[in-house]
Amino acid sequence: MSQTFDFGPLFPSTLPPAAARWSGLAKYNFTGGNNDGDAIPLDGLVAAANDVMRREGRSLATYGLAHGPQGYRPLREFLIVKLKRDAGIACTADDILVTSGSLQALDLVNGVLLARGDTVLFEQESYEGSLNRLKRLGVNAVGIPLDRDGMRTDAVAAALAGLKSRGIRPKYIYTIPTVQNPTGTIMPQARRAELLRLSAEYGVPIFEDDCYADLIWNHERPPAIHAMSQHGGVIHIGSFSKSIAPALRVGYIVASWDVLSRMLALKTDAGSGALEQMVLAEYCTPHFSEHVPGLTAALRRKLETLMESLNENFGTAAEFDDPRGGIFLWVKLPDNVDTMKLYQPALDAGVAINPGPQWSTDPAYSKCRMRLCFASPSHEEIREGIAVLADVCRREFGVPARSGNVERGR
Amino acid sequence: MSQTFDFGPLFPSTLPPAAARWSGLAKYNFTGGNNDGDAIPLDGLVAAANDVMRREGRSLATYGLAHGPQGYRPLREFLIVKLKRDAGIACTADDILVTSGSLQALDLVNGVLLARGDTVLFEQESYEGSLNRLKRLGVNAVGIPLDRDGMRTDAVAAALAGLKSRGIRPKYIYTIPTVQNPTGTIMPQARRAELLRLSAEYGVPIFEDDCYADLIWNHERPPAIHAMSQHGGVIHIGSFSKSIAPALRVGYIVASWDVLSRMLALKTDAGSGALEQMVLAEYCTPHFSEHVPGLTAALRRKLETLMESLNENFGTAAEFDDPRGGIFLWVKLPDNVDTMKLYQPALDAGVAINPGPQWSTDPAYSKCRMRLCFASPSHEEIREGIAVLADVCRREFGVPARSGNVERGR
Repeated sequence: MSQTFDFGPLFPSTLPPAAARWSGLAKYNFTGGNNDGDAIPLDGLVAAANDVMRREGRSLATYGLAHGPQGYRPLREFLIVKLKRDAGIACTADDILVTSGSLQALDLVNGVLLARGDTVLFEQESYEGSLNRLKRLGVNAVGIPLDRDGMRTDAVAAALAGLKSRGIRPKYIYTIPTVQNPTGTIMPQARRAELLRLSAEYGVPIFEDDCYADLIWNHERPPAIHAMSQHGGVIHIGSFSKSIAPALRVGYIVASWDVLSRMLALKTDAGSGALEQMVLAEYCTPHFSEHVPGLTAALRRKLETLMESLNENFGTAAEFDDPRGGIFLWVKLPDNVDTMKLYQPALDAGVAINPGPQWSTDPAYSKCRMRLCFASPSHEEIREGIAVLADVCRREFGVPARSGNVERGR
Repeated sequence: MSQTFDFGPLFPSTLPPAAARWSGLAKYNFTGGNNDGDAIPLDGLVAAANDVMRREGRSLATYGLAHGPQGYRPLREFLIVKLKRDAGIACTADDILVTSGSLQALDLVNGVLLARGDTVLFEQESYEGSLNRLKRLGVNAVGIPLDRDGMRTDAVAAALAGLKSRGIRPKYIYTIPTVQNPTGTIMPQARRAELLRLSAEYGVPIFEDDCYADLIWNHERPPAIHAMSQHGGVIHIGSFSKSIAPALRVGYIVASWDVLSRMLALKTDAGSGALEQMVLAEYCTPHFSEHVPGLTAALRRKLETLMESLNENFGTAAEFDDPRGGIFLWVKLPDNVDTMKLYQPALDAGVAINPGPQWSTDPAYSKCRMRLCFASPSHEEIREGIAVLADVCRREFGVPARSGNVERGR
């Protein structure tokens, strides 16, 4: 294609930089919320697709399957049962908006609440996609430190009081309370209650991101903050990306109508993908509960392979807590390691990692930390990849010191 | 759910009004780009879903099926062949970005080019969704009158010269040249060439929306403007909504990398729905060409039913050109009819129409006009619905005058 036309002068000055050409996934890919290919319930999804298309496929001729802008009704009906059973949330189909993945849910929550210059409370370490959205929107994310019970409510109280004294009312408190990303903690019920008390006291809604909540090793969790709320000021989002498959772009929002009705006015996409909603509803209604334990068992085994590989290759140089669920491990390396500078040499050696500073509001604290996702690589790839990563880290930063082990081949 | 939390003070002042609760589709629904349910290639889609999921379903565990952010590779490869054959466009997979319907394509084109206060050239009658997006963005849409060959290039030339004299460089010229929505015209090749000449002269890109281009009764069309361009300043978008099924949210953009790379930076949705892309690629690669003629024949029959029903019930009070393809008819009623005021009484009687002013930059010209979509209702529903509409119009506006026909029952 000849390229004499210059679009450059037409781009608004606020446009983010151009994306680079995609160059494929790393050989040892410890990034991204990808899942375990072997754990995809393929037979069930194929049967579901066949059954639901045979029965209702002609409704694909109508936008939204004529079920309205909130999504395919049987999927919302499955969610009513699932959310009650797993998260204690009592809601109706009218309280649920099906979205194109939880990323669209993030965009819609931000869309109805945020304007440039606004402030939100944010877990100090949290999902990169949420943090990047706030940066793009020009919103100030006040980082709240975490401990092994998640977001520290004493710090939330102090932040809210401090902001109030400066006349600032934050637009929401964003939390991933159930399998926190990246730390893997689960916030206890008492702390959830305290967060709700603070929310009510300061008139600041809670934005509860429960995307990883299905992936808990012992399947025990407190009720969702949304379920515990007396005041209705909690927006709850979830996803099928982690429990079924991320390439199916289906998530959801549970919120009161005063918020949902504003989100619907912004959701000008003529509905999220209907076939994916149909297949999920058809599969999940009978099979979700039996599918999840097999998935979490497979993920737990991969996590154990990862933790063993880290112990073997990094020794005490890699510190981490055994997370209670999820698909990621948050790892601290020695203080002299800068994971932003580890990133490119590791990638050159075939290993993709998430450097800590991209997942944190505090670059100094997170400088020597990294997130490793373990669901997608095979056990063998995890072992090989961590060995390669240790070699690169040693070459670049002198740690881990060579242990008594014989040096590994590459 | 108790509702004591007041979100009201947290909403930005620029937020659009709340959506109303969905109340179902009208009994006689002549709105929306819905398709003919009987024309959905159901057996083929079911077989495609089965085959592609059996073969590649485990790749659903990886975002974007590990095919990168531009979409499922076999779908882009189908599009290369289809766009060359049907529209004369020579492109590679790197020039194509698969989107969540052409609505996301509109958002991405607008996202990379438009800022509040900008100006674009726009067909005076055009797609409501495009017009509403411009209003929301605070962009000035300069309406260009249409004739039976589409957008009038003499008026384009005059508008460009006038704007230039005021120091305004429009961001794009938006056109639906191939089965224009709502007028159903096809812009001849010579006029396309003239539009390209003006685009080059004034440095204004052309935004070519080819969403309805597959639905032409005689299957004859000029090459796409994108195909004829020497300068690369044409952004081309299309969709599978009209040719296969609208509830599958799959569209695409063909553009040069300097534009696509900026769009990719805005497309933060972790990819469009993969299952829908997989099923479409698997079905369309062998079957698209054989499917379309059956679909257009079915649509043509419905259009004839609609035109007959209008003639029978409205007589000379309804004026229209027989369109060369598509799913809609643009109808002029007598000058005293206000279709914005016809809308609600018609809906109360079970008939949904698109009032002209919602599809036009010129409310005075379009006041007595309406768009009627004919793909979705059955032949019987078309006949009944138009009879009801004529009754309502007569009651509200005194036209059509009662003809010699016996009054119809309701």
